[in-house]
Amino acid sequence: MLTQHTVRSFDRELDYLAKKIAEMGDHACSIVERSVKAIVQDDYRLADELIAEDVILDKAEREIDEKAILVIARRQPMAVDLREIIGTIRISSDLERVGDMGKNIAKRAAVIAGTRQPSSFYSSLEAFVALALRQLNEVLDAYAKHSLDRINAVRERDGTIDAMYTSLFRELLTYMVKDSHNITACTHLLFCTKNIERIGDHATNIAETAHYVITGSYPLLERPKGDHTYEVGMRKEVS
Amino acid sequence: MLTQHTVRSFDRELDYLAKKIAEMGDHACSIVERSVKAIVQDDYRLADELIAEDVILDKAEREIDEKAILVIARRQPMAVDLREIIGTIRISSDLERVGDMGKNIAKRAAVIAGTRQPSSFYSSLEAFVALALRQLNEVLDAYAKHSLDRINAVRERDGTIDAMYTSLFRELLTYMVKDSHNITACTHLLFCTKNIERIGDHATNIAETAHYVITGSYPLLERPKGDHTYEVGMRKEVS
Repeated sequence: MLTQHTVRSFDRELDYLAKKIAEMGDHACSIVERSVKAIVQDDYRLADELIAEDVILDKAEREIDEKAILVIARRQPMAVDLREIIGTIRISSDLERVGDMGKNIAKRAAVIAGTRQPSSFYSSLEAFVALALRQLNEVLDAYAKHSLDRINAVRERDGTIDAMYTSLFRELLTYMVKDSHNITACTHLLFCTKNIERIGDHATNIAETAHYVITGSYPLLERPKGDHTYEVGMRKEVS
Repeated sequence: MLTQHTVRSFDRELDYLAKKIAEMGDHACSIVERSVKAIVQDDYRLADELIAEDVILDKAEREIDEKAILVIARRQPMAVDLREIIGTIRISSDLERVGDMGKNIAKRAAVIAGTRQPSSFYSSLEAFVALALRQLNEVLDAYAKHSLDRINAVRERDGTIDAMYTSLFRELLTYMVKDSHNITACTHLLFCTKNIERIGDHATNIAETAHYVITGSYPLLERPKGDHTYEVGMRKEVS
């Protein structure tokens, strides 16, 4: 049986992992936020800064993984404690990928520096990234508080992100059709919006991991998923 | 101490997980292969079949995770055994995402049905997906045989995939510039090629997980990574 002392230090280790996840979440959100700022304000210097920052999240993920495996080996936790540690490994991987999305956006911001689209597009893009990051922050906070209702609400809201993504996708296609000089820049912007849509998917992944950690079972597989631009047919944009 | 009997059944459990990973790998490759076939042969019926198949990989991932966590809880393995099981959880998540790439390509194949690009493009696309899947199969086989040299070779070859991706990216942009009626179809094809490039990234992720399982430490962070189309500047394509 575990002594009071062991239990206390085990709790400290779990708290440490939770703290690291929260830090990763904050950093990932900040990279993504500033990468979109680099596009909106056409600031390639900011973009270059961000590209270098991503490695911090790669290191954080590895640190969390190694610590988590150490804790499993040392404490041999059961049931919810074990799920919590495995969940930490999964969530850190999602957050590392969110950081990659930010880095990817920053790289494209640097490439398209000097090109501009109608200002309405940039306001939509800012609203879009704000929504995606709200989803991510909400699921991380809901998980920290083990609030199952809020976790499930995040999964249900993913459809809103997909709808905004599809409309931005259409908008960019029309700019490309209107003037072929926009094609390369708008293509990079298409990938940027796709990256933001994928942040929503990662928030959904985290919600599913959180659901599993708390309940011991996964939510139903049929959840609103990802990209609906497949529904963007051939006629609409080219006419 | 573990008895002979416990050791044998533990080995059986590890073998079971390895078998499941191999099955997931085969299925993921098959979905991706056929999704590209659906584009090349303009076969939207095949595309529709594939969209339904992806759920099999989602279920396989969850089955592997639950089994892996059960094995950790029951056997409380140490060192390399524990890393092997955690590695299984990571690799199954990469393979599930590879299946998603195939599903995504299939959805786009269905949307662009009836549109054609120059036949040279389709041959390049087939060569590209063959290369990405070769990388994936190689890393899975190298991991099954715990061959560190072959695992590291996979990481080093990732650059070839990026180079092919960049040239397909340029090619598609030129079709879009040439005729605005190509823009929507080529945009979907851009995302398809991006998905294939990401399969290469997943092969690299698996190589890193494999390296960690076998050696207990990760390879250096600075590895050739992902997408180099950021280097596709503004002038080249629009002139």
